[in-house]
Amino acid sequence: MNVKLAKRMDRLKASEIRELLKLTEQPGVISFAGGLPAPEVFPIEDVIESTTRTLKENGQKALQYTTTEGYGPLRDWIAERMNKQEGTNYDRDNILITHGSQQVLDFMGKVFIDEGDVVACEAPTYLAAINAFKAYGAQFAEIPTDDEGMIMEHLEKALQTGKVKFIYVIPTFQNPTGRTWSVERRKQLAALADKYGVAILEDNPYGDLRFEGENLPSVKSCDLSEKVLTGGTFSKIFCPGLRIGWIAGDKELIRKFVLVKQGADLQCNTLAQMSIYDYLKNFDIDKHIDKIKKLYKNRRDLALKCMQETFPKEVKFTHPNGGLFTWVELPEGVSARDLLVETLKEKIAFVPGGSFFPEFPKENTFRLNYSNMPEDKIEYGLRKLGEIITNYIKK
Amino acid sequence: MNVKLAKRMDRLKASEIRELLKLTEQPGVISFAGGLPAPEVFPIEDVIESTTRTLKENGQKALQYTTTEGYGPLRDWIAERMNKQEGTNYDRDNILITHGSQQVLDFMGKVFIDEGDVVACEAPTYLAAINAFKAYGAQFAEIPTDDEGMIMEHLEKALQTGKVKFIYVIPTFQNPTGRTWSVERRKQLAALADKYGVAILEDNPYGDLRFEGENLPSVKSCDLSEKVLTGGTFSKIFCPGLRIGWIAGDKELIRKFVLVKQGADLQCNTLAQMSIYDYLKNFDIDKHIDKIKKLYKNRRDLALKCMQETFPKEVKFTHPNGGLFTWVELPEGVSARDLLVETLKEKIAFVPGGSFFPEFPKENTFRLNYSNMPEDKIEYGLRKLGEIITNYIKK
Repeated sequence: MNVKLAKRMDRLKASEIRELLKLTEQPGVISFAGGLPAPEVFPIEDVIESTTRTLKENGQKALQYTTTEGYGPLRDWIAERMNKQEGTNYDRDNILITHGSQQVLDFMGKVFIDEGDVVACEAPTYLAAINAFKAYGAQFAEIPTDDEGMIMEHLEKALQTGKVKFIYVIPTFQNPTGRTWSVERRKQLAALADKYGVAILEDNPYGDLRFEGENLPSVKSCDLSEKVLTGGTFSKIFCPGLRIGWIAGDKELIRKFVLVKQGADLQCNTLAQMSIYDYLKNFDIDKHIDKIKKLYKNRRDLALKCMQETFPKEVKFTHPNGGLFTWVELPEGVSARDLLVETLKEKIAFVPGGSFFPEFPKENTFRLNYSNMPEDKIEYGLRKLGEIITNYIKK
Repeated sequence: MNVKLAKRMDRLKASEIRELLKLTEQPGVISFAGGLPAPEVFPIEDVIESTTRTLKENGQKALQYTTTEGYGPLRDWIAERMNKQEGTNYDRDNILITHGSQQVLDFMGKVFIDEGDVVACEAPTYLAAINAFKAYGAQFAEIPTDDEGMIMEHLEKALQTGKVKFIYVIPTFQNPTGRTWSVERRKQLAALADKYGVAILEDNPYGDLRFEGENLPSVKSCDLSEKVLTGGTFSKIFCPGLRIGWIAGDKELIRKFVLVKQGADLQCNTLAQMSIYDYLKNFDIDKHIDKIKKLYKNRRDLALKCMQETFPKEVKFTHPNGGLFTWVELPEGVSARDLLVETLKEKIAFVPGGSFFPEFPKENTFRLNYSNMPEDKIEYGLRKLGEIITNYIKK
């Protein structure tokens, strides 16, 4: 069709990496590429029970339009859980139900970004956040990170330019690195946002999936001036196919997000919202989360063991205390994209790290997911990967 | 929260009308305001059966992430139905599953509109389309309409400016007027789009709900040069709470929409897509649509009868052959907003027509929905409304 599109579409070209990742979906591939939860722990029987009960008892309501803000009792539940976990004082009006946490990212762009505005983000950061923000013409200030999180001197320099519209962070079991910010950095981040009058999106899809150590205070719980918005989701603690997430924050600002949601898609799936609420009321989600954590901890342990035993010493990787990912750094000059071409010949896949940097890709990095593959494939796949890397680096 | 937002947020202020409409949601109000389907014909038992079967047979898949494009077999079904009804030659790659047809509108803005670009639309047009396009900085060319559709001379003048990025139309049982375009105008529209190289969005949520008369060829079926995109939805022929719609069109262009969907919310609810497909395979949706049509036809007949008998002669209204709405024109100078304040005292609600015009509101109009209220409330509510209008105009 020969018609003229918006300029933003030039920025949204299909990335080379997405084309490459299609290869990872071929049958027989052992994929450490996606960010998929383990489907074998989806509580299918419980979902059948909750969905059926919702439809039997409230079918006309569950299949009808509902409010843009989302199903009230579900918003209450989320507010209460945040109040317990993060010391907020929220009620349902602090919560908007979204179509997964990806929609939170899209709406952040829509609410905050004019062409050329800057988002300060971790380097590296979540791939799909970069694309969501780019659609609104965002530029990026990539803030260098270490094992404790963003390095604050660099962040403050970016804030001093006056161009940063918001700061995007995933402080707990970060995607892609698996790292967790220290308490000190969380406090410093909140203080800087306050000082410069800039909003923060604290994206927290993995926070509940801690395998060991103490829960750390969220950035939100260090927030003195209502500058922090929180993105949450049921995707990693329940199931992603229902596409139910949320954004939480200052009521007045949440009203703006509600207006945006009205134009974007009216509301989330009513049945999904009501069924999840029924599940939360009638089953024990924390017990379910424990089951997920146990499985993922075993897989992380196995993955790290295989990597320690087979990856060459000059290859470094993170030791996450929770979440879904570990991050691998190859020696300088070794391209993970080129390595992927090799590993795909052996039907082993990962995501090259370059795409997780909006502007200055470090091509010698890659992300490994350990949540989705069964243990025998983790064992075989990562040992094989170690072998391939060893040979590849020698060349 | 004292932070700086994007400029577009100034355009998205909560409209006065939405505030007014909140009053219509109070208990006891007889509302002709919304565009809600009748919940008593939702096939609740069938949805329970389809959802349960989907979860039992394919639970791990139904609760997991799926592709951005949507569930393949559902896209096949939509393509085949369009091929049958509209003579297209589509396959699944012509179809992207969206979060209701509202998301089609949002994506049209995102794919086509740069700040200041023009959308040509019917005057009046669908309220929530105006807001969706405005979020991307759209301007509007309001094309005057008569009983046959847009008046082509006016449309061509707008196209001659070279600023129109796409034409937005609802040719069948239009929202808000209930009118249906003539075949001749459909052909002329397609020809003009071809001549000026401009895309069309043919929004068709109501086309299947025809109570009498012959089905007319869609604009798409008059389309010689692949300029027409079609927006469709299961909201009005099945149930809106599942939020499953689609956009259909040229494959290359649909790829652009897929990229946009990736950043916006990754994908639609997997379970909803698979359950709807199970329903389509195991039940007879056309038989179900017949049931809806029969109910709505009765309600339309009753509504028009009450209006004919009680509305003053100087008040005009449309006689829709299908769909959910009729459109009322009060004498010049009578404000439907002011009238609503009066009718709300008697707990009767409708939507004043001004908001359906992006730039030049005709305040002496309003929209009446006849699908959602049971017969006794239609009878009482519209006779009462006739009484109030009669007294109001006399004043």
